[in-house]
This record gives sequence, C-alpha cells and structure tokens, in this order.
Amino acid sequence: MNEKAMTSRPDLLPEPTLRRLPWYLAYLSTLRNASVEYISTTKIAEALDVDPSQIAKDLSFLGIRGKTRIGYQVDALESALRDYLGFDRSHNAIMMGAGSLGAALIADSGLQRYGLNIVAGIDIKPEIIGSVINGVRIYGTEEAQKLVETLDIKIGIIAVPVESAQSAADTIADAGVKAIWNFTPSRIRVRDGVVIANTSIYSHLAVMYNRLSNLNPEA
Amino acid sequence: MNEKAMTSRPDLLPEPTLRRLPWYLAYLSTLRNASVEYISTTKIAEALDVDPSQIAKDLSFLGIRGKTRIGYQVDALESALRDYLGFDRSHNAIMMGAGSLGAALIADSGLQRYGLNIVAGIDIKPEIIGSVINGVRIYGTEEAQKLVETLDIKIGIIAVPVESAQSAADTIADAGVKAIWNFTPSRIRVRDGVVIANTSIYSHLAVMYNRLSNLNPEA
Repeated sequence: MNEKAMTSRPDLLPEPTLRRLPWYLAYLSTLRNASVEYISTTKIAEALDVDPSQIAKDLSFLGIRGKTRIGYQVDALESALRDYLGFDRSHNAIMMGAGSLGAALIADSGLQRYGLNIVAGIDIKPEIIGSVINGVRIYGTEEAQKLVETLDIKIGIIAVPVESAQSAADTIADAGVKAIWNFTPSRIRVRDGVVIANTSIYSHLAVMYNRLSNLNPEA
Repeated sequence: MNEKAMTSRPDLLPEPTLRRLPWYLAYLSTLRNASVEYISTTKIAEALDVDPSQIAKDLSFLGIRGKTRIGYQVDALESALRDYLGFDRSHNAIMMGAGSLGAALIADSGLQRYGLNIVAGIDIKPEIIGSVINGVRIYGTEEAQKLVETLDIKIGIIAVPVESAQSAADTIADAGVKAIWNFTPSRIRVRDGVVIANTSIYSHLAVMYNRLSNLNPEA
C-alpha cells in the first residue's frame, strides 16, 4: 500500500457521495445533449433534488469548484466525473454463471460504456461451456485460475443460482480477482482485501411490490 | 385507501427490513436444497452477519415466530417469505426501451421467478418496433396507453438512454402504471401515488471501481 502516496488515484470517498456522482454525470450528459454550456449548483440541485451545498461538497472531493455566477462548464465537469469514476478506463471482468441473468449482463453492451469489459464467462453446464455470447466465450470452472491470470481480470461478477454464490465467489477470489460484483441475494463473504459490491435487483423488486400493494391494495 | 382495513396486504415495512427479507429467503433456499429442516435465528445470524434480535424482529413483521430450541421450519418460512414479498404473485410490467439493457432484462427469465411478468416493450427505433424478444413484442410509444389498459400493466421499467428517462417515465405514468422501476442513473420525478424504485447498476460500478483503485492503486 506504500504506492498510495505515489499515485493520483481517488481517495476513499463516502459511499453516498459516490452514489450521487453518477446522478450528476447523467444530468450533465442530458445538458450536453441539449447544448447547455454552463450550469449552476442551484440548477443541478433543483433538477436532482439534492441540497446545493451537498453538491458543492461532493464536487470539491474531485478538486472541482464552480465559478461565481457562471457555475460549472458542462463539458469539462462531465469529463472530470467520467474520469474520476473510472468509467473511461477499461476493467477486465469475468462472468460467473452464463445462465439467464449472466447471459443478459454479457449481452448488455451498456456496461462497456461504463468501463466494464467482460472478457470471459464460466459455467458448469456442459451445453453452455464452449458457447459464445456477444463475443464472450464461456469456459468450465477449472479454467478460472488461468483465465484470471492470462487475461488480467480484476473483477468477478456473480450471476449463478443463489445456493452456488459463495462457492463461485471462493473460486474466483482464489483465482486472484480483486473485486466481486454480486448479483445474487446471497450474502457472500471473502477475505480482506477483496472488494464486494452487491446489486440485488430482486431485493429492489421486493421493496417495489410492498410499496405498490400498500398504495393499491387491489394490485 | 379505505380498502386497506379490509385487506390482508403487508404493512409498510421499513426499507432496511424489506431489503433483508430476500437475504433470508435466499439462505432458506440454500438450506432447503441441502435438506435442512429447522433453522435457528442464531444460525441465520451467523450465516448472514445480521444481529439475531434483528432477524427475530424482521420476521415478526410477517407474524412469524420461531419455536424455542427448534427455531423456524425451513420450508414453511421460505414459503411465507416468498408469499409476503409478492414473489409468488404475477405482476404485469412493460419495458420502456428495448435496447441493450432493456433487451437483456426481457431475456432474464429469472425476473419471472420473482413475480415480474414483462408482457410488452416500447421503443422508438423503427428497426426494433415489431420485433419479439423472448416472446415479448416491442411496440411504438403511441401504443403505451392502450397496452397498459388492455394488458393490466401495473409496473413500468425504464431502460432508455438517460436523457430520455424522464419522458419515458411521464409517458408510462400517464398511461396509468402504479410503479416505475428505473434502471437509469437519472433522477426521475413522478406524481404522488406512483412508486419509484431505483436500480442504478452503474452507480454500483462506480463504488466498486473506487474501492478497487484504493485497495490496488495499480489497478
């Protein structure tokens, strides 16, 4: 970790800030499409329903300050955000599980625009192994280690059935990935030093159904 | 809302509880697969790294109490959770945007196992309109209203480019859906009475990249 002082990599930002930065980025893309050149904190605040002082604070983490009365230059702020968020750099990833969700994520070329480069997939089903989805080849589990090493893979994405989630995570962490993006509702555990990000889309469904049935009891 | 007293629909649960329930469900499915019959709060707590008293409290919202020394019956708790979470009921949904992410979500048959029944898609591209993905037909925007009415659609899923997110949400809310599941990083606003659930997978990527580059400055 002594390289840390030598690098210009982003500091460990508070997670709420990190989650807001993509909102700003999305809004700026909309503004650029509409040929808007400058934007004030107040305008961003109104559009996104975030406190203006919070926005200024979030952006100051990036070393960006707006000009009095003019605000931020849209193009420059957009590129600074994309760069800071790592969306402009390519991160090699391996998909664990090429079933329904895994194959869908491999097929989502949108992830590539956010710097996620899925270079290989792993599955246990003989009929899937050897197939190619959106240019990505699917291999058997025994290839995981070699793939991670030769293809310089840093991220493992878990899209296997929930009961296999922990073992898939173990396999890929042992193979040497540095981060795991878990799409299952399983609570995966890994050794210290491996980052875990959870995207449990089915949990979001549960919240939505509950709110829906309370608003509309007949639904 | 006076039907509320007449219905057995779930109460408005705290969101953290609602997000934990799918974890319990996922763990119970794993136990059932392993033919485990009973499970104690302590064991669930260890497996999921959640406080045991929190688990008991969460489950008590469902009117479920474990038996002293025996705990919960795995099968019964699993079905109670699935039922409570609405995963066993079918919720008709329409996909706004059948591009990369939208098509991928339509292709993810996993969503159907969680009660989400995507019955139609909407897109603006002439070359996509009229196509069929995984049995789901894609229509033009002008068909939205009719589709929502005739197909009894309660949920609109937003998977359009970020700059079109608000207008897609407006279209589908005007057509009469009761909930919007937003997959864009855009901050969508809708009138009161329409539920919004946000799943910004790209925000999760941003958090993961940041943590990753801090742990591994060379990454």
